[in-house]
Parts: sequence; C-alpha cells; structure tokens
Amino acid sequence: MNIEVCYTPQAYHLFHKQEAIVVVIDVFRATSAIVTAFYNGVSKMIPVATVEEAMEYQRNGYLAAAERNGEMIEGFELGNSPFGYMNNKVKGKTIAISTTNGTQAIEASRHASKILIGSFLNLDILCEYLTAQKKDVILVCAGWKNKFNLEDTIFAGAVVHKLINESGFQTTCDSAIASNHLYSLAKNDLYAFLSNSSHRNRLAKLDLERDIQYCLTPNQCPVIPVMAGKYLVKL
Amino acid sequence: MNIEVCYTPQAYHLFHKQEAIVVVIDVFRATSAIVTAFYNGVSKMIPVATVEEAMEYQRNGYLAAAERNGEMIEGFELGNSPFGYMNNKVKGKTIAISTTNGTQAIEASRHASKILIGSFLNLDILCEYLTAQKKDVILVCAGWKNKFNLEDTIFAGAVVHKLINESGFQTTCDSAIASNHLYSLAKNDLYAFLSNSSHRNRLAKLDLERDIQYCLTPNQCPVIPVMAGKYLVKL
Repeated sequence: MNIEVCYTPQAYHLFHKQEAIVVVIDVFRATSAIVTAFYNGVSKMIPVATVEEAMEYQRNGYLAAAERNGEMIEGFELGNSPFGYMNNKVKGKTIAISTTNGTQAIEASRHASKILIGSFLNLDILCEYLTAQKKDVILVCAGWKNKFNLEDTIFAGAVVHKLINESGFQTTCDSAIASNHLYSLAKNDLYAFLSNSSHRNRLAKLDLERDIQYCLTPNQCPVIPVMAGKYLVKL
Repeated sequence: MNIEVCYTPQAYHLFHKQEAIVVVIDVFRATSAIVTAFYNGVSKMIPVATVEEAMEYQRNGYLAAAERNGEMIEGFELGNSPFGYMNNKVKGKTIAISTTNGTQAIEASRHASKILIGSFLNLDILCEYLTAQKKDVILVCAGWKNKFNLEDTIFAGAVVHKLINESGFQTTCDSAIASNHLYSLAKNDLYAFLSNSSHRNRLAKLDLERDIQYCLTPNQCPVIPVMAGKYLVKL
C-alpha cells in the first residue's frame, strides 16, 4: 500500500486515484471541530463550500456553522471552534458547515471513492482503520487558501510515520517523505514547534490558544467521520 | 525584508508581489545546467515553455536544448545535463532551452520585476546579491509537474537559512519555515538525505548519478543568471 501527501486542495487533481482512500486534514480547526462534533453525538454534518449554502440550510431549519479567516460569521450559531460542539445542543442534530479551508479540501476531493476526516484528535483510530483497509491512502491537507501550512503537514507526517513504520505502507512521494521528517522534528513538542507558524499566530491574535492546545492533543475523540453522499457521518 | 517559498509553479500567483525578487529553482537539473552554462561562457539563453518553440529556434540557427522526464529529446544538441554545457561549443552562444519543470517555473513567474536563477552551484553569490538588494524575496521551486519536490525545497531552505541568520530577513511563511527545517536535517549530507527522494531515483535509473553529485556541490559556478526580456543573461 502506498501513501501520498497532497499539500493543498488545488493540487488534489494531480494525486487523484479512484481506488485510494482520502483523508482530509485541517488541524486548525475544521477537521478537529468535525471530529469533536461526532464524538459529542452530532448525527450528520453537511460540508458546503460557500457561506450562502450554509445560510440556506440555516433558513431551512438546520443548525449551521460558518467560519472565514478564523472567525465565526455573524448570524451563525457555530464557527469552527471545537468547543462549540461540546454540548447537548448539537446531540443528534444535522449541521451544515462551511470553513475557509477544510470544506474546500473536501470539495476538491469529492470524486474520491472514500473520504475520511483526520485530526490529532482521532489519530490512532484513523491509522488503525487505514491499516485494516489495505488500500492506497492520499492525505489531503487543507492548508491556508491553497498555500502549504505546517500544522496539517505535521499531522500528515504523524500518519505517514505510523503507517510506514507500523503497518508496512510505502511511499515514493516527496511530500510524504518531507512530512515525516517535519513530524520527527515536531513530535516531542507540537505546540513549541508550531510557535512561529502562520496560522497559529493568526489564531493567537484571535485569542484562541485554548483551541490550539486542544487541537494538538492526540486521541481525545476516537471516532472517524466519513463522507456518505453529501453527508458526513460516523463510520 | 521578507522571504517566502512557493513549492510549485502553479501556486506562484498566490505569492506574486510586484516589487519582490523571484529566484527560480530546479536543482535536478535545469537551473543547475543554466548556471553551469553561464559559468562556461554562454552568452544568452532563451527559456521557452514548449519543445516546439525550442525546435523553432533550432531551425533558425540557434543552439537548442530540450528535456522531458529526465531525458534529452531526440533531434536536439543539448538536454539539461550540466555536463553538456562544459565545452567550447557553447561559448559565446545563445541557447534556447525547454525543460519539464524549470522553464515552466520561469514562465509562471514572468510578471515578477526581477527573476534570478538559483542552484547549489551559485548559492553564496546569490545570497550575497539578495542581501544587497534589500527587497522581499520569493523562492519559486520548479517541483515535479506541479508536485512538491525535496531537492528544490532543500535548496530553498539553504537560502532561507542564510538570509534569516546572516542577513536580517524575516518570514511568516510556513513553506519557508518548513524548508529551513528540512535543510537543517539535510545539510550535513545532502546526497544521503535525498537518497529516497522521487526525482533522485528517477535520475539514478537514467544513470545520472554523476549529475546528481555535481548539482549538490555548492558554489562551483559563482554567476547569477537573470531574465532580461525574453533572454537569460549574466547579471
């Protein structure tokens, strides 16, 4: 089994293979929020590319979440802070969600046969599932507006590291090799390693240090969200 | 002064700033060959995107070079092996050149106010020049068919490392930070670090180990090629 890493949604078409499993990664914070939501009993989510679509769902009685540039959009009940999804209000609900990068990465990989949601919060259970499938894996980093970002790359490196060292996966993909190297430098203190990264600083300015700490703490939410038609559901 | 790294030609539009200096990087082997050519007395080069354009120049009496997928194209006198440019045949000549990735990166950044050619072969003189200009710098990696590659990233990291540590440049660009980290892992043995990389293996299959060793040996050709209209000339 082969593992590759795609650093930005706009490059996904260069990696697409019909039979491969895609894992979408947006550590700060869309995929961390989605994993948290399912762990806290959300029934379904509907990732949509535009704020307008999320608003349309809201008008039709759904809970809806929308974030751009790190901030919740006015008029919505939820953004992409994982802490917004840790309450009884969301239990059993279907939530439409649109975010700056994460939902764009889901949209870019929509022709994949299987799309999973990954974050440090579900790292181990995700790797166990991928190991059991015995299929090629493409890790799709959401990045920041189609630029490379460090936090998604380091999480991709954590998955590459596990699948190559523990599960017999192989790679000839330079971005997978680089992700693995960067994870090796980061793993002893993810928080410190990311101290200069662009999005951590963007979030710190928005007073979101608590979110950052939470998103970098592995295995707090052992669930795997998966796309089923237009919905995300719990695998 | 700010330094950023763009990993693939297709992402250049996300980085473009009118006043910034662009350095195009294709370590294996286009920019290494170009730097070697100027060091060996070539007068001008004309980078062109397509093989057909290179052929047209050849028909009109120019020397022409064309490479795709690591191999010289039949009917041309030169490919992108630096060793092809180390002889009296090229001295004083104008050479049209089209390669798989390097000339595409030049094409992508054509609206930049200044485009320089970088490789390990001209690392120090390039950094000295960039330091003296006191302008923002964008390092554009040619990559491999718009995918990230390791060797261009490591060279970008070498430049980032020098300009930040020795010349007061700053960065908030995650790909610049990552390049710097990867260079720190690679710098003691570039050749060994790249032993698993995709393009090194592609070239090794083509029996080009001598080219690889040469392209990874810093400061053999202290010249800086620069775009002037449609031509590359010596700065």
